Amino acid sequence: MANGIERPLDLLNNSKHKEVLVQLKGDKQFVGTLLAFDIHINLVLDNTKEMQNNEVKRNIGLTFLRGDTIIFISPASTMMKK
Amino acid sequence: MANGIERPLDLLNNSKHKEVLVQLKGDKQFVGTLLAFDIHINLVLDNTKEMQNNEVKRNIGLTFLRGDTIIFISPASTMMKK
Amino acid sequence: MANGIERPLDLLNNSKHKEVLVQLKGDKQFVGTLLAFDIHINLVLDNTKEMQNNEVKRNIGLTFLRGDTIIFISPASTMMKK
Amino acid sequence: MANGIERPLDLLNNSKHKEVLVQLKGDKQFVGTLLAFDIHINLVLDNTKEMQNNEVKRNIGLTFLRGDTIIFISPASTMMKK
Amino acid sequence: MANGIERPLDLLNNSKHKEVLVQLKGDKQFVGTLLAFDIHINLVLDNTKEMQNNEVKRNIGLTFLRGDTIIFISPASTMMKK
Amino acid sequence: MANGIERPLDLLNNSKHKEVLVQLKGDKQFVGTLLAFDIHINLVLDNTKEMQNNEVKRNIGLTFLRGDTIIFISPASTMMKK
Amino acid sequence: MANGIERPLDLLNNSKHKEVLVQLKGDKQFVGTLLAFDIHINLVLDNTKEMQNNEVKRNIGLTFLRGDTIIFISPASTMMKK
Repeated sequence: MANGIERPLDLLNNSKHKEVLVQLKGDKQFVGTLLAFDIHINLVLDNTKEMQNNEVKRNIGLTFLRGDTIIFISPASTMMKK
Repeated sequence: MANGIERPLDLLNNSKHKEVLVQLKGDKQFVGTLLAFDIHINLVLDNTKEMQNNEVKRNIGLTFLRGDTIIFISPASTMMKK
Repeated sequence: MANGIERPLDLLNNSKHKEVLVQLKGDKQFVGTLLAFDIHINLVLDNTKEMQNNEVKRNIGLTFLRGDTIIFISPASTMMKK
Repeated sequence: MANGIERPLDLLNNSKHKEVLVQLKGDKQFVGTLLAFDIHINLVLDNTKEMQNNEVKRNIGLTFLRGDTIIFISPASTMMKK
Repeated sequence: MANGIERPLDLLNNSKHKEVLVQLKGDKQFVGTLLAFDIHINLVLDNTKEMQNNEVKRNIGLTFLRGDTIIFISPASTMMKK
Repeated sequence: MANGIERPLDLLNNSKHKEVLVQLKGDKQFVGTLLAFDIHINLVLDNTKEMQNNEVKRNIGLTFLRGDTIIFISPASTMMKK
Repeated sequence: MANGIERPLDLLNNSKHKEVLVQLKGDKQFVGTLLAFDIHINLVLDNTKEMQNNEVKRNIGLTFLRGDTIIFISPASTMMKK
């Protein structure tokens, strides 16, 4: 999946319709399916779960996440391999 | 409702006149009917309720919410299904 | 009052010369008559009262409020109906 | 003094050469004569006094105040009438 | 020195080669000779002293100060007169 | 590796496909292989490890890091020589 | 070294290939040789040392420092003369 990444947004493009982990400022963490993003790194996730200590805290379904609270975004598949 | 979402703002467009949950920085949470939004993610909600621990803390009716304090916006219908 | 709101600033336009509640970051709250606003959500309020626990803490008369400290703005009339 | 205020900066214009109260983030408060302002709400005050609990903490004379730390600006004359 | 100040930057221009007090966010305070500034309020000070409780904490000589941490800038001469 | 660095982004360009240490605000630290960056200093790292007290806290594989939470980025090779 | 400084960036230009002290928000301090800077005050330092209480805490070699966490930058030579 790391192939063909020339610019940072390429990773988000490669991750569309796949599960991603999104870490926000203030220790909030979300897992969901990436449906859309823009250059401000605003995201739409589907089947979003708010996580806490690796457990599901809340199901929030479809979600619009504002880019400026995001620290990092990781495709879940590359995490699970570790 | 996840169909046809190409860009993040499409979800907000699909959510117009529907109930949404808005999570702000500093743990404030609002539920209301989305009437309008702009590219700064400024929102107008109607019948807005400030929530705390899943209970209504305050009714604030029609409200203009500044985009830069928003963490996420979720259509309530997709949350309730879970 | 919710009629005819296409864009978020329409609500501020409809609220001119009416009483609004303005919630700022850091738990400051103001009530006053909205005289003017701009696209940065800078406001001018008249007969402004700084509120604390639903009581008037300070009368600050005419006031210029910088937009970037604002969380939400609500016309008082729509709050009172609840 | 509230007459003729169409845009927020009109209040600052009306307040030139008059005493204003300036509230900054982090609970700092200044009183001084407004000499100049710009669209970033940078201000120059003359005879500036830093206030604490309604007492003068420090005289800082002529002062350039950066706009982005300002919460609100009030002409002193409209406060005293209350 | 307050004469001829039409815009906020005029005060900085009048203060060139003079001693200024610069108050930063987070309670840092510097005194030095203003050599240069730009529209971002980035400054260069010479003979800069970091102050704490009116005493010199550290001599840091020539210094580039980023504008976005600055709260206010005061020419020292107008402070001493008080 | 310090040769030929005329502009800050040249160091990031020289560090592509090499291991870098990324220090974030709020004391988070990541080590990974730099795959891509843009002018906002958004990064993509591969084989990313979140570090704490020099130990691996979490493997997060491929990661998109938003530039605005970054304090510094160091090529690991130049750290190890010390 | 203070001669010929017309604009703030002139001091950074004069400091190229010289040792500088960089103070960041959150009390982090770095000393290193300034190799490059841009208008965002992003820096590249060589032989960078993270300092704490005037002692070297960590050697981080070549480093890209993001401008928006910087409070001030001082050429070390002008500090030592004091």
